[in-house]
Amino acid sequence: MKLNFKAIISILGLLLILNGSFMLLCLPVSIYYNDGDWHALLLSGLITLITGLIAYALTKNQSDRGLKKRDGYLVVTLGWLGMSLFGTLPYLISGEIPFFTDAFFETLSGFTTTGASIINDIESISKGILMWRSLTQWIGGMGIIVLTVAILPLLGIGGMQLFVAEAPGVTPDKLKPRITDTAKRLWLIYLGLTVFEAILLKIGGMNYFDSINHALTTMATGGFSTKNASVAHFTTPFIQYVIIIFMFLAGTNFTLTYFGLHGKLKKVWENEEFRFYFGFTACFTIIVTIVIFLVTDESFESSFRDSLFQIVAIVTTTGYITADYTGWAPLVTVIIFMLMFVGASAGSTAGGVKVVRHIILLKNSLLELRRQIHPAAVLPVRLNGKAVTSEITFNVMAFMIIYFMVFAFGSIIISSLGYDFTTSIGAVATCLGNIGPGFGKVGPMDNFAFISIPGKWILSFLMLLGRLELFTVLILFTPYYWTKH
Amino acid sequence: MKLNFKAIISILGLLLILNGSFMLLCLPVSIYYNDGDWHALLLSGLITLITGLIAYALTKNQSDRGLKKRDGYLVVTLGWLGMSLFGTLPYLISGEIPFFTDAFFETLSGFTTTGASIINDIESISKGILMWRSLTQWIGGMGIIVLTVAILPLLGIGGMQLFVAEAPGVTPDKLKPRITDTAKRLWLIYLGLTVFEAILLKIGGMNYFDSINHALTTMATGGFSTKNASVAHFTTPFIQYVIIIFMFLAGTNFTLTYFGLHGKLKKVWENEEFRFYFGFTACFTIIVTIVIFLVTDESFESSFRDSLFQIVAIVTTTGYITADYTGWAPLVTVIIFMLMFVGASAGSTAGGVKVVRHIILLKNSLLELRRQIHPAAVLPVRLNGKAVTSEITFNVMAFMIIYFMVFAFGSIIISSLGYDFTTSIGAVATCLGNIGPGFGKVGPMDNFAFISIPGKWILSFLMLLGRLELFTVLILFTPYYWTKH
Repeated sequence: MKLNFKAIISILGLLLILNGSFMLLCLPVSIYYNDGDWHALLLSGLITLITGLIAYALTKNQSDRGLKKRDGYLVVTLGWLGMSLFGTLPYLISGEIPFFTDAFFETLSGFTTTGASIINDIESISKGILMWRSLTQWIGGMGIIVLTVAILPLLGIGGMQLFVAEAPGVTPDKLKPRITDTAKRLWLIYLGLTVFEAILLKIGGMNYFDSINHALTTMATGGFSTKNASVAHFTTPFIQYVIIIFMFLAGTNFTLTYFGLHGKLKKVWENEEFRFYFGFTACFTIIVTIVIFLVTDESFESSFRDSLFQIVAIVTTTGYITADYTGWAPLVTVIIFMLMFVGASAGSTAGGVKVVRHIILLKNSLLELRRQIHPAAVLPVRLNGKAVTSEITFNVMAFMIIYFMVFAFGSIIISSLGYDFTTSIGAVATCLGNIGPGFGKVGPMDNFAFISIPGKWILSFLMLLGRLELFTVLILFTPYYWTKH
Repeated sequence: MKLNFKAIISILGLLLILNGSFMLLCLPVSIYYNDGDWHALLLSGLITLITGLIAYALTKNQSDRGLKKRDGYLVVTLGWLGMSLFGTLPYLISGEIPFFTDAFFETLSGFTTTGASIINDIESISKGILMWRSLTQWIGGMGIIVLTVAILPLLGIGGMQLFVAEAPGVTPDKLKPRITDTAKRLWLIYLGLTVFEAILLKIGGMNYFDSINHALTTMATGGFSTKNASVAHFTTPFIQYVIIIFMFLAGTNFTLTYFGLHGKLKKVWENEEFRFYFGFTACFTIIVTIVIFLVTDESFESSFRDSLFQIVAIVTTTGYITADYTGWAPLVTVIIFMLMFVGASAGSTAGGVKVVRHIILLKNSLLELRRQIHPAAVLPVRLNGKAVTSEITFNVMAFMIIYFMVFAFGSIIISSLGYDFTTSIGAVATCLGNIGPGFGKVGPMDNFAFISIPGKWILSFLMLLGRLELFTVLILFTPYYWTKH
C-alpha cells in the first residue's frame, strides 16, 4: 500500500491557505499601529496563501479521499513543519528576527504552543509581528484540538482512544465527519473562551492589544507574552487571577468544558482525570504557598497567588511567569521540575505526558504489586469505572518509557554542547513538555537566545516530538514505515 | 493462608548466626593491629550470635518447612533490616560511630552494597571496625546472589525469571535445592574472585589489609574504601586497572562467569545482556576519554583510565572514585547521572535497574512503533533469540515506571529538607541505585555525614527499596498483603 501523496499535499495546501489567511489578519494591526511591517505581513501572507492554493489546485482537492492511517503520521508531522516553515516569513521579511534558525525556533515554539522564545527584547518588536507570534500559538492550539479529538485516536497513540469515547458526537467512523462535527463544536468553545478572556483582561486594565494577545496565548497554553517580564508586567491581582482561571480551563479537556457549559457539572466532576488534575494542582499549590509565605515577606494572598500562578502555568504547560520559581526554595525547584513531566488533561491544548496517562500508570503500579502475589488474577486498571484494556495500559507505559528515553538522550546531546547540568536537563524537559521556561540559564527570567544553532535545532525537534505525542514523529524514523506493506 | 512466622523467625535466626560469626572473624584483625576495639567486636558478635541461636532454637529449625511465596517478601525485607540492625553493634559499642542513625545508615549502606558513607575521616577508624565495614558489603553481595538466583524469580519480580532459566543447575522446583546447588556454585566463584583480586592488589603494592578490604568491596560492587580519597589514594595504574577489571566482573552475571570459567566463552559472548553491558560501557568510556583528554592536561592513557574507572564504577554501581567526575564537563555529569538509572547485569552483585531490563524496554519501544501501524500483529520482544512473554515485558515496564515514581517522590521529600536541586536528585538517584557517590554536596569528593537525621532515614529506605528490586519491599505496604487470602 503506497502512501497517498496527493491527498497529503492537498491537506498541506489547505493548511497553508489557513496559515496565509491568518498572516493577512495581522495586517490591520500593523497598519493601525503604523509599525512599518505591513509590507512584510502582506508579502508573507500572499506567498503562503498562493503556495497553498497551488498545492491544493494541483492535487484537485484530494484532501478527503482515501487518506489512510499510515498517511496520517506523515501529514500531521509535515503539517506542523510546513506551517512553521512558512510561519517564519513574517519574522524574516520584516527583519525582526533576521536569522532562519532563530525564526524557525520561535515559530515552531509557537505552533507547538511551547512558548520558549529567542527574543531578547520583546517590547521592541513591532505590533503586527507580535500579533503573528501570538496567533501561531492560537492556531497551534486549534490544531491540537483536531489532532486529539479526531486524528490521534485513529492512529492509536497511547491512551487517546480512552478520551475520545467521551467526546460529544463522536462515532467510530471515518476521519471527515469527526473533524467537521466534534472539532467545530470544540473550536467554538475555544474561540468563545478566548474572546471572553480578552474582555475580562481589558476590564482588568490591559489595553486592547495586550488583552487580545494574552487571551490568544493563554487558551493555547502557549505562554508567549507581549512583555519582557511576561505576566509579571501586570501586577493587578484581577488580571493574574483571570489568567490563572483561563490557563486552568485551557488545560481542561475541552469535551468536559462542553459538558460543563451544557450544565452537566456532575459529569465534569465525576471525570477522574479532571479530579486528579484539580486535586494535585491544589495540593502542590498549598505546599508552595506555605514555602513562599515562610521564606519571603509576601502577604498570604500574594504567596498564594504566586504559587497558584506558577503551578498552574507549569502544569498546563503554558509557561507564563509572574515570579522566579527557582528563587524560593530547592523544594519548589524540584516540584516544578517533576511537574514538567506531568502535563494537564488529554483533549486540552496542553502538552506533556497528560494526567490521564499518569492515572493509568499510578493505578497500574498499585495493581502490579497485587499481581505479584497472585499472578493468575486478572486485574485491569479501571478508569471512570470502566476497565482499561491491557493493550492500552501497555501502550501508555511504553509511551512513558520512550518519553524518559528521549529526555535522557536529549539531555546528553544538549549538555555535549557545553551547557551545564541544570540548564541542559531543564531545557530538554521544558521543550519536550511544550512548557516554555526551564532552569539554570534557561530559567523563568531568561530565554533561549544564547543557545547555539545546533542546540536550537535539537530543542526544536524535541518540541515537535512532545507536541505530536512522540509516536507520530518517531514512526517516520523507522525503516518499517517506509517499506511497502 | 497465614504467614508462616515460625519459619520466618527461624531464617532470621540463621542469618543472625551468620552475621555474628562474621563479626567474630574481625576479632583477629583487631587484635593483630591492637586497635583496642576487640572487646566491641567480641561483644557484638556474641550478642548477634546468641540472639540468632535463640531464635533458631525456639522455632525448632523450621527454616525450610512450608515457606510460601507470600512469606518470601517479608523474610527478605526483614532479613536485610535485621542484619543491618545488629550490624550497627560494632560501630556503636566501639564508639567509632556514636549515633544510631549514622550507624544504621552506614550498615545498611554496607549490606545493600551501596557504599554511601557518613564517616568523615575513614582513616581514623580502627582496623577491626573497617574490616567489619567491608564485610557488611561482602555479606550483602552473597545475599544478593542467593536473592537473584533463588528467591526473586519465585517471587515474580520483573524480568528475573528470564535470567534464572539460564543459571546452571536450576530446576523450577522448591526453594531449598536451588539455594544449596546453584547458589553454592556461584558463591564459590564469588569467593574465588575475591581471593584472586586480593592477591593481585597485594602484588600491585597494597598492604594485606587494604588489598583484602578492597577485594571484598569490589566483588560486592559496594565501594567502601579504607582510604578517605577512595581508590584515588592508590595512584599505581596496575592497581586501578585490576580494580576496573574486577568491578566489571562483579557487574557480570555470575552464571556467565561460571560458563566462562568452564571454557564456554562463546556462550558468554552470545549473551545479549553481556554484549550490551560491554558495548555501552565501551561507548561511554570513549566519549568521556575524549572529553577528559580535551579539557585537562592528562596524558591519553591517564584520560582513558580515569574515564574507564569512573564509568565502570558507576555502571556496576560500585561507586569507587579516582577522580571528580563532576569537574570535567557538563556532558560527563549528565552521562554519569543518566548511567545511575542503568545498573549492570542481573545475576551480578550490582544494584540499579539492570541492563537486561533496559534491553527489553529499548526493544519493546521500537516494536511499539511498529505495533502502532499494525495493531493486530503479534510482535514479542526477543531476548537471546527467545520470545519474552508480554507479561514479563509488562512487568519490566511497570518496574521502570515505579522506579521513576520513587525517584520523583524521593527527590521531592529530600529537597523539602532544604538540600539544593542537584544534591537532592543526586542523593536519591545514587541511593536508589545502590551506587554511593552522587552530585552537588554529596558528590564524589563528599559524603553523607551532613545530611539531617530524617534525610538519612529516607535515603536508607531508598537504598533498601533499590536493593530489593522495589516490589519486595513495596508489597509489604499494601493492605492487600496483610489481609487473609
